[in-house]
Amino acid sequence: MIGEIIAIGDELTSGRIVNTTSGFAARHIFAAGHEIYAMHTIGDTPSLIGEALKRAIRRVDFVLVTGGLGSTTDDLTNEAVADALGRPPTLYPDILEKIRRHLGAEAPSPNNYEKMAWLPQGAEILNNHARMAGYMLCHESVPIFFLPGIPAQMKELLVDQVLPRLAGWSSNNRNHIQQRVYKTFGVSENVINSRLVELEQINNVHVGYYPVDCEVHVSLTVLEQDDRAAKEKFAMADQTITEAIGASTYGTDQETLAEVVGKLLCKSQKRLAVAESCTGGLLGEKITAVAGSSDWFDGGVIAYSNQLKEILLHVDRSLLVNYGAVSEQVAMAMAARLADRIKTDIAVSVTGIAGPDGGSREKPVGTVYIGLLHNNKVSARLHHFEGNRMRIREMTASTALDTVRRALLAGN
Amino acid sequence: MIGEIIAIGDELTSGRIVNTTSGFAARHIFAAGHEIYAMHTIGDTPSLIGEALKRAIRRVDFVLVTGGLGSTTDDLTNEAVADALGRPPTLYPDILEKIRRHLGAEAPSPNNYEKMAWLPQGAEILNNHARMAGYMLCHESVPIFFLPGIPAQMKELLVDQVLPRLAGWSSNNRNHIQQRVYKTFGVSENVINSRLVELEQINNVHVGYYPVDCEVHVSLTVLEQDDRAAKEKFAMADQTITEAIGASTYGTDQETLAEVVGKLLCKSQKRLAVAESCTGGLLGEKITAVAGSSDWFDGGVIAYSNQLKEILLHVDRSLLVNYGAVSEQVAMAMAARLADRIKTDIAVSVTGIAGPDGGSREKPVGTVYIGLLHNNKVSARLHHFEGNRMRIREMTASTALDTVRRALLAGN
Repeated sequence: MIGEIIAIGDELTSGRIVNTTSGFAARHIFAAGHEIYAMHTIGDTPSLIGEALKRAIRRVDFVLVTGGLGSTTDDLTNEAVADALGRPPTLYPDILEKIRRHLGAEAPSPNNYEKMAWLPQGAEILNNHARMAGYMLCHESVPIFFLPGIPAQMKELLVDQVLPRLAGWSSNNRNHIQQRVYKTFGVSENVINSRLVELEQINNVHVGYYPVDCEVHVSLTVLEQDDRAAKEKFAMADQTITEAIGASTYGTDQETLAEVVGKLLCKSQKRLAVAESCTGGLLGEKITAVAGSSDWFDGGVIAYSNQLKEILLHVDRSLLVNYGAVSEQVAMAMAARLADRIKTDIAVSVTGIAGPDGGSREKPVGTVYIGLLHNNKVSARLHHFEGNRMRIREMTASTALDTVRRALLAGN
Repeated sequence: MIGEIIAIGDELTSGRIVNTTSGFAARHIFAAGHEIYAMHTIGDTPSLIGEALKRAIRRVDFVLVTGGLGSTTDDLTNEAVADALGRPPTLYPDILEKIRRHLGAEAPSPNNYEKMAWLPQGAEILNNHARMAGYMLCHESVPIFFLPGIPAQMKELLVDQVLPRLAGWSSNNRNHIQQRVYKTFGVSENVINSRLVELEQINNVHVGYYPVDCEVHVSLTVLEQDDRAAKEKFAMADQTITEAIGASTYGTDQETLAEVVGKLLCKSQKRLAVAESCTGGLLGEKITAVAGSSDWFDGGVIAYSNQLKEILLHVDRSLLVNYGAVSEQVAMAMAARLADRIKTDIAVSVTGIAGPDGGSREKPVGTVYIGLLHNNKVSARLHHFEGNRMRIREMTASTALDTVRRALLAGN
């Protein structure tokens, strides 16, 4: 099936909020074998909402509308839909009752939440517990899903309510899709592209290149009418890509660099700790974002000031004085002393200048040392990263993770 | 002026990448006093690109197109534009030469970058150094800006090239706009809305409510033909909002909670340190994202394992054994011992269960203690946060910052 997504909200067209829900919906709809014709973002203006909806109904098999269903006065989707599709607002007393019970004492004034129980005629409620807004309308045989704009609620209803319905309607003429995303770090988009130009010529094989933060993701999509043909073509393409860029690929699909590091640590039964200066906790944050990371991660020190490098990491003051906090010697000492203190197998340290201030001619902004203690050997490497403070910190944290990954793979 | 934004890329319609550039553009265009009619996201399909472009030209004053200008084979915007607007691709030898010089040895094959020098007839280059793609076309008197999809490049060209041109064209009939965003933490959207319903009734005053991560942002926009009228109305509305929600507002516009904490620390000449368990570095990361945070932040300990709580923070083993790592006693000890060790003025600690595993009947997932050492007094408070691992960690880090903010404001 082919669908269209309409996100509604002045907060989106004025750029105050980044629209993450449309992308989430697109990803899941696409992975389920459907296509997205287009995604639109429009303000809380009833005429615009009506126009976008009527145009979409004419050209796609289903429409997903998000936002503007809430209880505050700037939420106008229900009114706009009622008007545009000629379906007068109707009170759903069940909903009203459930909202009342759910909100309890928190509700500030009756008008606010009563609004959420007036829906366009024919609306079928998607969440029976009324914990959140959301309904479906079938208009001129085209199903239209109205979901809340709050990301967590929208995602829950999309996965639990929308996708199963789409699957039911489209089970007869479905495309067979095979998809994989190859996640690379440390190699440029152009270099990867140049190695895969031949693969791109093959029918029904689509290769995409996407710089994401500090990484380049390569997506492979094979779409065939026949299931076996899709699988065979996919296996061939997968082999080609693996041969071309395998060494730079740290993982596939939803895997993160930190997750991959965690898997390698578990496999070798080793534990990791971090000593962070310029990243200030970002490296630990990326690691502990992985559920279950306590199995292989101890923690570490955010040694932002020199004083903390001395007191908590036991870095010699003479090193700090003679070489400076941003130096090979201090990076090595941070990793080695931390590992010493807490008896961990691998310690990685970062010290650098993230900017915008603090740079000098000898050590400009972007100068970063990454230290590593592994197998009782300590080393450090100098990096020069470009970009703003955020970019330099991201590059530093990712490079530190990749340093650990490569050390574990090499076993030395 | 009224504009429309078109973002191009299969990576966007398949949801592999979240579109952040459209929101960034909208925010800046809106802040400059223009309006966004709609934003669209479409795939790398020439016919769709052409159609979207032709429809936009008919109804707005300017169009912004992002993405698909790159050197890889899936970038098709230039071809699509050439075809849709009847402007045959033309070689820009200057560009070719500059790209050659810029890429130097990195270029994998000549075809890749030559592609970027073939532009639709009449294209005016936006970046004279050819460090990035980007050009302008004036078609049927409507300016169309084509910018790269890579966020950093798109943002640079938007600010340096697009906005100044829009300002020049529209200086005569410009609306006077006054805008402020009030950033709140710890109060619900509905409660705020209920206090501001009267303000919303006033002509040309627009109030919006936006849950952003763990916060609620309230935007006030006043749009008037006359500059003085705009300013007067804005001052009145600002006063109303401040009286209604001032206590819950930590800052305005671009300020982050961590920045506000930093300003308060500087004012009282105090320094902060952190002891993080379940946030694993997220709190330190939020703090050190603020440029210049070394003026008021020392660092701290990521005490993810119990062992590290003992070795680095000197938390008594008996506390960990008797009360568990997630307890009031341990939260207090983490803050107090850290402050002791590194002689800092304020120490904040977090210990909790972020899930998905590790919960029990007594301490379910979401149970978090936040400890505080301030003015030589130590305290801890129990919180119950809802949501997934990411949400609980975000709530924990934000609440820890807000705890410090409130302590500094109260002076105790």
